Amino acid sequence: MTEVKFQSNIEIEYIQHMGSDEMVAHAAWVSTRGKVIEFKPDDPAKIPGLINYLMKHRHGTPFEHGGLTIRGYGPIFMWIEWLRHRIGFSYNGESGRYKQLDPVFWEPGRDRPLLKAIDSTPARPKSVPMESDEEFYAMLRDKREVCAACYRVYEQDLARGVENGVARSVLPYSIYSAYYVTCNPRSIMALSLRVEDYEAFFVSHPQREIQEAALQLEEIFRQYWPLTHAAFVKNGRVGP
Amino acid sequence: MTEVKFQSNIEIEYIQHMGSDEMVAHAAWVSTRGKVIEFKPDDPAKIPGLINYLMKHRHGTPFEHGGLTIRGYGPIFMWIEWLRHRIGFSYNGESGRYKQLDPVFWEPGRDRPLLKAIDSTPARPKSVPMESDEEFYAMLRDKREVCAACYRVYEQDLARGVENGVARSVLPYSIYSAYYVTCNPRSIMALSLRVEDYEAFFVSHPQREIQEAALQLEEIFRQYWPLTHAAFVKNGRVGP
Amino acid sequence: MTEVKFQSNIEIEYIQHMGSDEMVAHAAWVSTRGKVIEFKPDDPAKIPGLINYLMKHRHGTPFEHGGLTIRGYGPIFMWIEWLRHRIGFSYNGESGRYKQLDPVFWEPGRDRPLLKAIDSTPARPKSVPMESDEEFYAMLRDKREVCAACYRVYEQDLARGVENGVARSVLPYSIYSAYYVTCNPRSIMALSLRVEDYEAFFVSHPQREIQEAALQLEEIFRQYWPLTHAAFVKNGRVGP
Amino acid sequence: MTEVKFQSNIEIEYIQHMGSDEMVAHAAWVSTRGKVIEFKPDDPAKIPGLINYLMKHRHGTPFEHGGLTIRGYGPIFMWIEWLRHRIGFSYNGESGRYKQLDPVFWEPGRDRPLLKAIDSTPARPKSVPMESDEEFYAMLRDKREVCAACYRVYEQDLARGVENGVARSVLPYSIYSAYYVTCNPRSIMALSLRVEDYEAFFVSHPQREIQEAALQLEEIFRQYWPLTHAAFVKNGRVGP
Repeated sequence: MTEVKFQSNIEIEYIQHMGSDEMVAHAAWVSTRGKVIEFKPDDPAKIPGLINYLMKHRHGTPFEHGGLTIRGYGPIFMWIEWLRHRIGFSYNGESGRYKQLDPVFWEPGRDRPLLKAIDSTPARPKSVPMESDEEFYAMLRDKREVCAACYRVYEQDLARGVENGVARSVLPYSIYSAYYVTCNPRSIMALSLRVEDYEAFFVSHPQREIQEAALQLEEIFRQYWPLTHAAFVKNGRVGP
Repeated sequence: MTEVKFQSNIEIEYIQHMGSDEMVAHAAWVSTRGKVIEFKPDDPAKIPGLINYLMKHRHGTPFEHGGLTIRGYGPIFMWIEWLRHRIGFSYNGESGRYKQLDPVFWEPGRDRPLLKAIDSTPARPKSVPMESDEEFYAMLRDKREVCAACYRVYEQDLARGVENGVARSVLPYSIYSAYYVTCNPRSIMALSLRVEDYEAFFVSHPQREIQEAALQLEEIFRQYWPLTHAAFVKNGRVGP
Repeated sequence: MTEVKFQSNIEIEYIQHMGSDEMVAHAAWVSTRGKVIEFKPDDPAKIPGLINYLMKHRHGTPFEHGGLTIRGYGPIFMWIEWLRHRIGFSYNGESGRYKQLDPVFWEPGRDRPLLKAIDSTPARPKSVPMESDEEFYAMLRDKREVCAACYRVYEQDLARGVENGVARSVLPYSIYSAYYVTCNPRSIMALSLRVEDYEAFFVSHPQREIQEAALQLEEIFRQYWPLTHAAFVKNGRVGP
Repeated sequence: MTEVKFQSNIEIEYIQHMGSDEMVAHAAWVSTRGKVIEFKPDDPAKIPGLINYLMKHRHGTPFEHGGLTIRGYGPIFMWIEWLRHRIGFSYNGESGRYKQLDPVFWEPGRDRPLLKAIDSTPARPKSVPMESDEEFYAMLRDKREVCAACYRVYEQDLARGVENGVARSVLPYSIYSAYYVTCNPRSIMALSLRVEDYEAFFVSHPQREIQEAALQLEEIFRQYWPLTHAAFVKNGRVGP
């Protein structure tokens, strides 16, 4: 019998990128300089201030002249949330119609806050860890059992010759899926609203798994566009 | 114990619309007439020819001056495919984080072709009906059992106080979900590639459930934009 | 000789719309209510609060389930700015290739502030009226003269048989053009950043003519979505 | 007095890119392979066939995992047409509000077909060269005169302290402007409809200047994505 695997991690892996903070500045300077090819000696020193200005005044288009492709791996419930981002995002994902999906399911890690806190509200959800080990592992056991049972029915259907698209219908949301995602600094900053940060101007309360994906993506973004990222944080995480 | 329901239908319900074939024509005529407010007596007679011309030559923008909102109800695996349409589509859907999802799951109807045909290929999938009643109902029984088991674990988690987003992770793809979708004639024609039509210029092989949604949407579209729809079909179902 | 006309007004004319504040609420409620068709007696009373909540927390998608088509008439320099809005905007405009453009040009009205103020900066432009009537009308006379001269060369080229697209190349930016524009509440709020309002959270400094267009559009929006508009203003004019 | 310059060329200059034909294949393979990191020895040999398959069947998303930034320089009437492309295009352009525009205007080259042919129709425009040198240079002289006159009024207004945005209103459409444009293989193929090619499945009749821009862009695209470009041409230049 196929062994069913359970894990909790979210993986965002760098594939390719183009652009830099300097490119943001060049695209912005075309407004005021026009067709100028050479840059002046003191231009580099002006870039941090310029980027901060663009961010603060929400001039967003200069942040679109860059690109980043990642390969992500996470549960389908995470992807469904991510796929809602339509602007500045391109996706290609694992297909439940063209291949047999691998028996890998997400489950919460031991340290993940799980229980709705007493002061949790739908608008401001708040969770606390499950204290009892016994309760936690009983919960996992139940989850694992039903996921494994679903996967058995799935395989049985495939063995019967049922088309993939129908067979996969019994698979739980927690099944892992791989996606190629291409985005740009501006769209990354829009996704970053999916990070709960009480320093942010508009505080968001995403589910922890989409937040984990957004944080890993943001870390890659920070590496290649450090000034842009710093200006984003400084200006209350309001995407331009 | 909560009763779990199984069904096979896809529902696309009209909510509101604006626009008409005449509006497509008016938007197109602004190119050649500019700021003209009154239309000429023989203009109505010219509309079918104009719309056919726009479609044939792929002048797409006049088909964007309209709108249609529907409420759809179908399994989540259908929505995941639909949500991949980013341009000219707006979505609001039932949330697995803000509410308890209803125990309604999709299962194939008796007459739905299910088995991969001998000459089926990934690029050109083809299915035939399952002949044996016994085999069909055995398959359904297995599906129902695991879906019901998953829903029990889901409810148990909710009863334990587990946050909705985590609890729903064990629910199968076949669970029903409701969405408001707003689109326009041009984006509807792009979705219509999700209809297998051997008269089409580019033949598509969608999964039957997304095709059913696309067909119902197309039928509403046909009612309010009959000339546009006729021109679309006449020109090989190639969206402009 | 063709008479060349000069004017200063911007016209935004209502053509069609769909949607309402109530529709925004219905689209939002699908998250928490799912496939519910009937609304409760006290739902209407909840709509203002709900819309304010969505606006404040920047939940934007419910504001996309509506549509508005307008016919606008203004100078091409205004349209070039407007056309930069790509998301949630559809355009069809008068074509300089398919028709002879009408001899109607924009010029500033007598009361329009025109002169850069002493404390004007590129980031915070500020204008004051031209005091001298003599100077103002001398300026107009010069503008009118060159616009009329350009139009004469344009007509001469057309008479010579020069293709429209080349002939129009000498026409000034101030020539009027008509456009059909279709948008939705969310995209209208994004355009509304083109209004200089010192109560706004992010103050913008648009050119007066695009601001005039945005204000007229906003007034139509306010009529059909009064609660949405009120929430937009209340929340610092930050589009969700 | 400022010297006014006239020229006919369109410049599209490579700035940066990411992606390749191989990346298109990798993004497509995630559908059928999922989270596979290593590629097989015979994969490279399969890439041309795969790309042709994707193009033929209009699977467009794999072509979005790439990016290209160019700096373009051309008359504003060309940019207005280009700016109509909203999807997969990002723009930053020279601003008539933030800087004084340079006195550089477009005029047709001697060899450019200019006169509407006898069998030209609006739907199928066709031009032939102007035979008489005398007529051609008389035409240029008139164009140059009015463009120079407009520029003088523009400078005079600026000298008077008139705000840039108003002063520029008398400048002709033929004035040059610089833009940064970022796009991707899929959006480039959509722009390529702006090339008149009688081998294409849908023949387009663009103005020569936007066609020149599209051709130069296509040439850069061909260099970095040769297999994708070949498949595009082979399949009748129908963008996927």
